Amino acid sequence: MKRIMTLIGAMLLGVAALAQESIGLDKPIESPVINADGTVTFRYKSESATSVQLTGDFLPTTKVETPYGTFDQPGVAELQKGANGVWEYTTPDAVAPEFYNYNFIVDGDKALDLSNVFVNRDIANLTSVLLVPGGQADLYTVQDVPHGTVSKVWYHSGIAGMNRRLTVYTPASYNGKKKLPVLYVLHGIGGDEDAWVTQGRACQILDNLIADGKAVPMIVVFTNGNISQEAAPLENSTGYTRPTTALPNTMDGKFEQSFPEIVNFIDSHYRTIAKKQSRAICGLSMGGWHTLYISVNYPKMFNYSGMFSAAVGVHDLPSSPIYEDLDGKLADYFAAKPALLWIGCGNTDFLYKNNADFRAKLDAEGYPYTYRESDGGHIWRNWRIYLSEFLPLLFR
Amino acid sequence: MKRIMTLIGAMLLGVAALAQESIGLDKPIESPVINADGTVTFRYKSESATSVQLTGDFLPTTKVETPYGTFDQPGVAELQKGANGVWEYTTPDAVAPEFYNYNFIVDGDKALDLSNVFVNRDIANLTSVLLVPGGQADLYTVQDVPHGTVSKVWYHSGIAGMNRRLTVYTPASYNGKKKLPVLYVLHGIGGDEDAWVTQGRACQILDNLIADGKAVPMIVVFTNGNISQEAAPLENSTGYTRPTTALPNTMDGKFEQSFPEIVNFIDSHYRTIAKKQSRAICGLSMGGWHTLYISVNYPKMFNYSGMFSAAVGVHDLPSSPIYEDLDGKLADYFAAKPALLWIGCGNTDFLYKNNADFRAKLDAEGYPYTYRESDGGHIWRNWRIYLSEFLPLLFR
Repeated sequence: MKRIMTLIGAMLLGVAALAQESIGLDKPIESPVINADGTVTFRYKSESATSVQLTGDFLPTTKVETPYGTFDQPGVAELQKGANGVWEYTTPDAVAPEFYNYNFIVDGDKALDLSNVFVNRDIANLTSVLLVPGGQADLYTVQDVPHGTVSKVWYHSGIAGMNRRLTVYTPASYNGKKKLPVLYVLHGIGGDEDAWVTQGRACQILDNLIADGKAVPMIVVFTNGNISQEAAPLENSTGYTRPTTALPNTMDGKFEQSFPEIVNFIDSHYRTIAKKQSRAICGLSMGGWHTLYISVNYPKMFNYSGMFSAAVGVHDLPSSPIYEDLDGKLADYFAAKPALLWIGCGNTDFLYKNNADFRAKLDAEGYPYTYRESDGGHIWRNWRIYLSEFLPLLFR
Repeated sequence: MKRIMTLIGAMLLGVAALAQESIGLDKPIESPVINADGTVTFRYKSESATSVQLTGDFLPTTKVETPYGTFDQPGVAELQKGANGVWEYTTPDAVAPEFYNYNFIVDGDKALDLSNVFVNRDIANLTSVLLVPGGQADLYTVQDVPHGTVSKVWYHSGIAGMNRRLTVYTPASYNGKKKLPVLYVLHGIGGDEDAWVTQGRACQILDNLIADGKAVPMIVVFTNGNISQEAAPLENSTGYTRPTTALPNTMDGKFEQSFPEIVNFIDSHYRTIAKKQSRAICGLSMGGWHTLYISVNYPKMFNYSGMFSAAVGVHDLPSSPIYEDLDGKLADYFAAKPALLWIGCGNTDFLYKNNADFRAKLDAEGYPYTYRESDGGHIWRNWRIYLSEFLPLLFR
């Protein structure tokens, strides 16, 4: 036994020294720690910093005035320096169950929590994440239930002229025999085909709701709505280079126009029920806008549509047949009697008025829809809630 | 057009302020930058730091003496502070094509490159990564070729008493009709079912070799060899908690013992050619050890075995029938006439002598094998090379 321990010791040391296969030896502190009383302690090691702060969406927000309106901004807490250069902060109260993002600010500059391997990428930024289980947030945890398969799948888009990547969830019961309905889930600006899986915890929500009988087994397809992009930044043949903010052709109608290519691909590669009654679509923000225009341009395609904090009410659109004659298309869409148009919006969302105006337009024509208003703004917390409430309504 | 730009501006601002869907606004500097002459510039922003250094496996190594032997350790370079607190370092020479790991050291403490969203996790550590294309490293890039599907799939292990996660690669030509051969690929200590996909770039290597006709289309299964673990740290039902170095039951024979469960699962869920002639297995370090003991304990299962920097020659093993009578099992294994036993090792690997001793044992019995010795030590650079050389030999 001694020799094997020596060997393992040598492997640990060897690989750590080479920075090629490291296993935790350079992590002297624990952070974050959920304490027994529900408070959370954050730690950051720096001998030389003069200030270490924490910002995260579990801290009380402050109001920020901008040319575009008033926004909630996460608060900032000060860490105190202790022995050995370890800075520490413990929340005064228990932190409510939720999936949170946070980072440190070291002498004014952003830093990740390197004691925490749980990091999410939002297209060009990294953020440390913290999942406090309990209540609604239990849906976001990996539980001891049957797990679906999550696949990165490529399809060819003739309209985009390239191969493009999708994330596809097939439930644990998918066996290549029984046909299943399909939900398409769209991200917002700044996202890609990874966003709902990482920030949205969508596959955990699906596993848990399906295991609990609250949602029917379904195939779920997470698309990439940046039509000029093959895939998430790491996965493009155009180079392993730094992504930028600029995503041309993200909102020019081409993605909506190309959507039937995706539906055809899924119907021809998976055991789907390839008809309107068994198709749903939803999206957040830009993806809510995409959802609207895809739904009304192809009124025979989707029976259920969910608009989450949707970027509706943008009138001066780029020229595209997709965006023309919304009123006429809405008439056709509702004439085809969709089972559900579901609209969710936070009561402090900067798109609240846009959504209220859109609902007024529907009301004026007597078009049916379901409306869900939640606390808070244009944030993932709401989108996770909306998805978990939308899923049980589908394919019943 | 003006209104849509305002809306997009508001969305950018709103989401950045909320740290919920950020798109690059907090990244004032570019790092790393591959310059036209092939040198690479790294930048880190800190107004207050007194020292910013860079370490990475592209820097000249230094020798480090340890109780376990002499190891190569990546060198350290000093960044120079410029205007606005931006520290900078440019390599003196062009950086050779390769997939590299690096991080900064700010006043003695590790920091990631936050201008670089390309971060890999090795079980409990994060590292910034840089891919310099060209030559062998072109195999590691996403090219404009047909891409396989990469899936996270769960199977039930009766021996482990839990559901466990696999990564499964199916090539672009996999259509659920034609049966394909299967390669099983095993990680080292410190890794999990993600390691070969992230640090190993295995799916890019597969896409590129298959597209080029240098490897035959095959299904590839990346297992999790930590038998007491359901999945990579983020994906366990035991909690969304910090992983530790301790992985009990990683080397006690139980993983090897349970391996037929994985093969049976794959054969019953994919269109495989379910016979020895069409099965291969390989692994690095601990996974090379697993490969050896799986191959010899189930001599009718695999026709091709690859041991990459394998942890062979560890004699005082935990008590398990898996590890008993290696000599007798080797005789049975070679009597069953495997098509290939492939052994690769770096000439400065700390396991070099263990592998030389193992080869001497094979030589003494006249057992056939193929040996590949490369420069360098116990590092991913070698394992990527070994995989890319092993794949073309399979299923011909």
